[in-house]
Amino acid sequence: MGELQLSVGRKLRYGMIGGGPGASIGAVHRRAAALDGDIELVAGAFSTDAGRSAAQGRDLLLSPDRVYGSFADMAAGEVDVSPQSRMDFVVIVTPNDLHFDVARRFLDAGFFVVCDKPLTTTVRDANTLVDLVEKRQALFAVTYNYSGYPMVKQAREMVRSGELGEIRKIVVEYSQGWLTQAIELEGQKQASWRSDPMRGGPALVLGDIGTHAEHLVRYVTGLQVDSVFAELTTFVPGRQLEDDASVLFHCAGGVRGVMLVSQVSVGEENALGLRVYGTHASLEWMQERPNYLIVRPDGHPTQRYARGNTYLCDAAKAASRLPPGHPEGFIEAFANVYADFARDVSARLSGSRVEDSPQYPTVHDGMLGVKFVRAALESHRTGGWVDVMTDCGEDE
Amino acid sequence: MGELQLSVGRKLRYGMIGGGPGASIGAVHRRAAALDGDIELVAGAFSTDAGRSAAQGRDLLLSPDRVYGSFADMAAGEVDVSPQSRMDFVVIVTPNDLHFDVARRFLDAGFFVVCDKPLTTTVRDANTLVDLVEKRQALFAVTYNYSGYPMVKQAREMVRSGELGEIRKIVVEYSQGWLTQAIELEGQKQASWRSDPMRGGPALVLGDIGTHAEHLVRYVTGLQVDSVFAELTTFVPGRQLEDDASVLFHCAGGVRGVMLVSQVSVGEENALGLRVYGTHASLEWMQERPNYLIVRPDGHPTQRYARGNTYLCDAAKAASRLPPGHPEGFIEAFANVYADFARDVSARLSGSRVEDSPQYPTVHDGMLGVKFVRAALESHRTGGWVDVMTDCGEDE
Amino acid sequence: MGELQLSVGRKLRYGMIGGGPGASIGAVHRRAAALDGDIELVAGAFSTDAGRSAAQGRDLLLSPDRVYGSFADMAAGEVDVSPQSRMDFVVIVTPNDLHFDVARRFLDAGFFVVCDKPLTTTVRDANTLVDLVEKRQALFAVTYNYSGYPMVKQAREMVRSGELGEIRKIVVEYSQGWLTQAIELEGQKQASWRSDPMRGGPALVLGDIGTHAEHLVRYVTGLQVDSVFAELTTFVPGRQLEDDASVLFHCAGGVRGVMLVSQVSVGEENALGLRVYGTHASLEWMQERPNYLIVRPDGHPTQRYARGNTYLCDAAKAASRLPPGHPEGFIEAFANVYADFARDVSARLSGSRVEDSPQYPTVHDGMLGVKFVRAALESHRTGGWVDVMTDCGEDE
Amino acid sequence: MGELQLSVGRKLRYGMIGGGPGASIGAVHRRAAALDGDIELVAGAFSTDAGRSAAQGRDLLLSPDRVYGSFADMAAGEVDVSPQSRMDFVVIVTPNDLHFDVARRFLDAGFFVVCDKPLTTTVRDANTLVDLVEKRQALFAVTYNYSGYPMVKQAREMVRSGELGEIRKIVVEYSQGWLTQAIELEGQKQASWRSDPMRGGPALVLGDIGTHAEHLVRYVTGLQVDSVFAELTTFVPGRQLEDDASVLFHCAGGVRGVMLVSQVSVGEENALGLRVYGTHASLEWMQERPNYLIVRPDGHPTQRYARGNTYLCDAAKAASRLPPGHPEGFIEAFANVYADFARDVSARLSGSRVEDSPQYPTVHDGMLGVKFVRAALESHRTGGWVDVMTDCGEDE
Repeated sequence: MGELQLSVGRKLRYGMIGGGPGASIGAVHRRAAALDGDIELVAGAFSTDAGRSAAQGRDLLLSPDRVYGSFADMAAGEVDVSPQSRMDFVVIVTPNDLHFDVARRFLDAGFFVVCDKPLTTTVRDANTLVDLVEKRQALFAVTYNYSGYPMVKQAREMVRSGELGEIRKIVVEYSQGWLTQAIELEGQKQASWRSDPMRGGPALVLGDIGTHAEHLVRYVTGLQVDSVFAELTTFVPGRQLEDDASVLFHCAGGVRGVMLVSQVSVGEENALGLRVYGTHASLEWMQERPNYLIVRPDGHPTQRYARGNTYLCDAAKAASRLPPGHPEGFIEAFANVYADFARDVSARLSGSRVEDSPQYPTVHDGMLGVKFVRAALESHRTGGWVDVMTDCGEDE
Repeated sequence: MGELQLSVGRKLRYGMIGGGPGASIGAVHRRAAALDGDIELVAGAFSTDAGRSAAQGRDLLLSPDRVYGSFADMAAGEVDVSPQSRMDFVVIVTPNDLHFDVARRFLDAGFFVVCDKPLTTTVRDANTLVDLVEKRQALFAVTYNYSGYPMVKQAREMVRSGELGEIRKIVVEYSQGWLTQAIELEGQKQASWRSDPMRGGPALVLGDIGTHAEHLVRYVTGLQVDSVFAELTTFVPGRQLEDDASVLFHCAGGVRGVMLVSQVSVGEENALGLRVYGTHASLEWMQERPNYLIVRPDGHPTQRYARGNTYLCDAAKAASRLPPGHPEGFIEAFANVYADFARDVSARLSGSRVEDSPQYPTVHDGMLGVKFVRAALESHRTGGWVDVMTDCGEDE
Repeated sequence: MGELQLSVGRKLRYGMIGGGPGASIGAVHRRAAALDGDIELVAGAFSTDAGRSAAQGRDLLLSPDRVYGSFADMAAGEVDVSPQSRMDFVVIVTPNDLHFDVARRFLDAGFFVVCDKPLTTTVRDANTLVDLVEKRQALFAVTYNYSGYPMVKQAREMVRSGELGEIRKIVVEYSQGWLTQAIELEGQKQASWRSDPMRGGPALVLGDIGTHAEHLVRYVTGLQVDSVFAELTTFVPGRQLEDDASVLFHCAGGVRGVMLVSQVSVGEENALGLRVYGTHASLEWMQERPNYLIVRPDGHPTQRYARGNTYLCDAAKAASRLPPGHPEGFIEAFANVYADFARDVSARLSGSRVEDSPQYPTVHDGMLGVKFVRAALESHRTGGWVDVMTDCGEDE
Repeated sequence: MGELQLSVGRKLRYGMIGGGPGASIGAVHRRAAALDGDIELVAGAFSTDAGRSAAQGRDLLLSPDRVYGSFADMAAGEVDVSPQSRMDFVVIVTPNDLHFDVARRFLDAGFFVVCDKPLTTTVRDANTLVDLVEKRQALFAVTYNYSGYPMVKQAREMVRSGELGEIRKIVVEYSQGWLTQAIELEGQKQASWRSDPMRGGPALVLGDIGTHAEHLVRYVTGLQVDSVFAELTTFVPGRQLEDDASVLFHCAGGVRGVMLVSQVSVGEENALGLRVYGTHASLEWMQERPNYLIVRPDGHPTQRYARGNTYLCDAAKAASRLPPGHPEGFIEAFANVYADFARDVSARLSGSRVEDSPQYPTVHDGMLGVKFVRAALESHRTGGWVDVMTDCGEDE
């Protein structure tokens, strides 16, 4: 409690939508928020089943009057809570189809928002949220959590400062194997909603993990995916959405990219990896070995940068909690997104100026992810290249 | 808050001794305690300098009346706090020389204790604490945190269930490089007290990291180090204590072991590794890649067990918070020690029976570590083998 | 010397075309042929410069009357050599543009042939050679040397015996960085001819290393690349041919594939890797760690198969010369192609029956590689998918 | 044939003692000698069974009159062969107990010698050979083949040029698992003679692999093991000699070392590894990944040096046959010992001056290895430290 030493001089308070019993990512958010001792959970609508929501609230030691049976009730209820205990922001960890409605409701009610990815299931909704955040001058984070890893920040610094020379090629891969079998047909909850177009949206792997890959590319290189050629495959019989995607992409300046995303790569766990090749050097980061960054300068020995060392850039050092060799992992990276968001929230609450370029991924980043998904789907449908910004300016 | 769902139905409360500004391990304890949302910091004597202690208390958002200028004041003060807000246990993260006095004082005041390693600087003190814990029927954890890693628990299960056959040889190494130069002469705080016999005790690497290695061996194999032959070296000019140790050791049943510990292995970060060789298979665990356990069965391909998978033993699964491929690290392992301790504390507070064999390392484990250090020092002094239990039954 | 113990009861004799001073792959062929002591070099036309050819012949301790100034002279001359010392086969290690003429000439002269890849620069020439080999009943090897690695043979066996279940996806990558700069403009010999369309043929990376990747896929999985969608890029200014290619491909049965090949992936050395994902397990082989094969069975620990062990398949064991842990490398794998070819040559010379399905890559494999290159070039030109067999049945 | 371009202008000729059917290391020597095409096998006494020797000679395509039934016959016979075809040196690959007699006989007959390690089974014999080589002015190589790896030469250069600063600590390990079971009792030939004191000598692991480890330390660091404290263990019931050894050692200048050697480390294949820690940097080389050298400079990223690159030292480059990323292995390293020896033999035969400090390990290196083994045995017997040079100056 209090490692961040927020300017507001108190803990920040949040409520959670989703994250009930059986959910997966909700507990990750709660631990990430709790890690530094500056953020506390005070309210929640954990399930659309009021009884289950209440049970989860009890387990989490919440006051029963702050546990709700629907997000709408919670948005209404929290407005009436006294400012001394009212929550500062809401965290949305529902299935994808609800992100938009929940986010809009809480933005309208005057709360800041943390929302899981993908931001929405349609480009139209994403654009609407961007406009609303702008109008409300709200703070809005999208948990592209891989950007929170210190060595990703080191990669970003090295690419942007020119240590790799001019960027030529990007290879990003995000391979998982947990959907190798049709476990959604056996009631596996995480698989069920993700593979159901009505709940997960029009894409499976593209939305669930492709958006992470797309953001990682952009976060590290500063390059936006301009156009895509995508081949989507549904390998598992009976599945309604793609469970594998191979995407060629172009960025500005002639940069070429390849993205592989799959949830049927049997034996792979959470194999997100990024490689960037420049004219002078290349780098590689693998999420499953997150404390290291491999740098290969032309004509010199390969270098392994390791988290926690003094030779790293300031951003990598600031995002690190432990000395070298004491592994930090997924939750710590996730907590960095919360920490960055918390600093901005704290600044706003204490009347300080907030940076124009937040450290955490914003609603704008979320919107770009949705456009990327849309473009890839369109490319697969048409069999040709699709321009991400032009062709996906608005859907429906 | 509340992922552990403790039987006591409320958060546990603790106070901290040490862990002030500039300290290192204090913040690790606080984050490990905070991670699951069930344990909250309510009091502290963070420094022997009252002003610094108060400042740290403010940073940590504590109530000023629960922040003390000395551990003695805190022991006295906390007894007077109402049971509804009184702390349940104290966490001791001071330099080694204070562990004994602080622990004794709080045990006498009726509190449970979490103490960093090494437990004490003398065998006599360690034995005294063992007796006192027994007499008070207190709960007492020593933070041999590496035992908290899920894959260490998997290793333990595999060794103890006989999958390796009869154990023959153990190789344990704990190499760091941060004391390669005489940074204690330049005022580096962590180096200064550790290398000062008056504050760190009679050993440097043996106490600081050798005790971790010794406990890891015992935790995984169930074997106690019976006798040791130790060569200690002080490589850095001006240093008062050994900064490198090579130890041969014997366990029951003809098991042979080698332990390498060093803080002048330049370039090494926190390279704790354990290998166990049996008649049928061997295993290897490396702290810097903690989510994996390598198993080498005779005549079969080498296997890499990975955290989070369904094929792991119950203890490994219970100690895991995330799916496979989502790295867990040092803090999560540390938090497992706290979680296990918290469950016992909760059980005691709610009147439930507490297991005779706690999951977390106890004062008894701490005592054995101190005896191991004492025996190694004695071996080096005499140039011969030293029996850990017999020859180190009592010192002074 | 005769570790192969050929049925012919003598060493086999060969001549070499190309492989003069400054060449690269010639010495690899010579060492691969020499390794087992059953094959000896007896003749050569090492350079189109007679003086350089003669100098190389002296360095290689050849009889001056067996060293020629042109391949045509050598084809003519060797026919007149007495059967007791006449060469048994010719090895072609010239730039690509000469493969066809040399191969045809020696086939016509009645010699067997070993030819480096790509077989030819046009599909028409490749088809001509296939027909000629058939007509002459000749033995003809194409040195897709990566198929010679024992663990590639293990992978092949595991895929084909069904241990992976049904194959779904193939990812093959062959990344090098040695053409990151325009070294062909500075006279680097290997770069010069490869990047010159008149000498290397119509493709750079596709022909030089893409054909290796294509063959590896086919060798391991038994699947032929049916159709391709290729994006080719020339990153280095002034270069005439593509130095990077990203290829999506389809195989029979709905199998999807991705191939990345590049010679501008700065910092990469010879990073050929193959991954095959099935319904039950996946496998991964990396050329830079050739003694190991990673197998990931669904729901079980990842396994690392290692060369030299008794648990491997017969083909992997037969292709291995050393016990486990004694690394074999590139030359040993290359020598396996020679050993397999030598056994067939020996069988033919001693009147034994030769297997219909040779262990070594044949002219047919070479022809398929050329068609693959042609299809990828066509796909890039047209921006669409190209059928490898139909659309590349004949060119010009 | 002829990649070394020896000054003598012809192939060198050798004969082999040992290496018959069922032997292991003989074929490795033959391939290592054959690799570069400059050395040919012309004679042999492959077995003490004349029929088996003759059969092996036939398999190796030797002239029957150059195949002998005993080494004594061969020494006598080869002297009578005409200088144009007489062998230049003999290669001794018999069980250890024969090394001395064979080497002495061939030295006396005027031949140069390549002998496998350990040089002899007694210090007295080793000293006798050293004297004899001196007296005969003979060339004598001992195949400490691990010194032939290019990256070992790079390590040597970096240590000796001071890039690591002053050396403090050396950790060398050579772990195998192939003697985990008592396979010598089941007739496994390699295990049988090695574990038989009458044939393998007074030590098992110390002689068989400990000498490799000792030489590697000396070769890389230039430091001689001055004194040892050794604990030897025989884990396998019924075995006559030690199958595991843990050795602490001292070198000049206060350097401390640890050596672990074992042949009962189940699951290990040929895990020879060396780490050297200095005041500025450390390095690590692992035989199972021989193309890489890890260097860890204090305060900088860890570096991975890779074979074949231009940034390496001359010795590493000269010992390399292939570009980066094209793995070289055990045979290539072994061939480097032969190549270095061949260059000296060629120089002597052509009347050139031979360097005083040969690149290959000599009889002197072999003698030091035998003294090391003797000292370790003595240490184990006495339970104390033993000075290698003083206490093992002469035995019996």
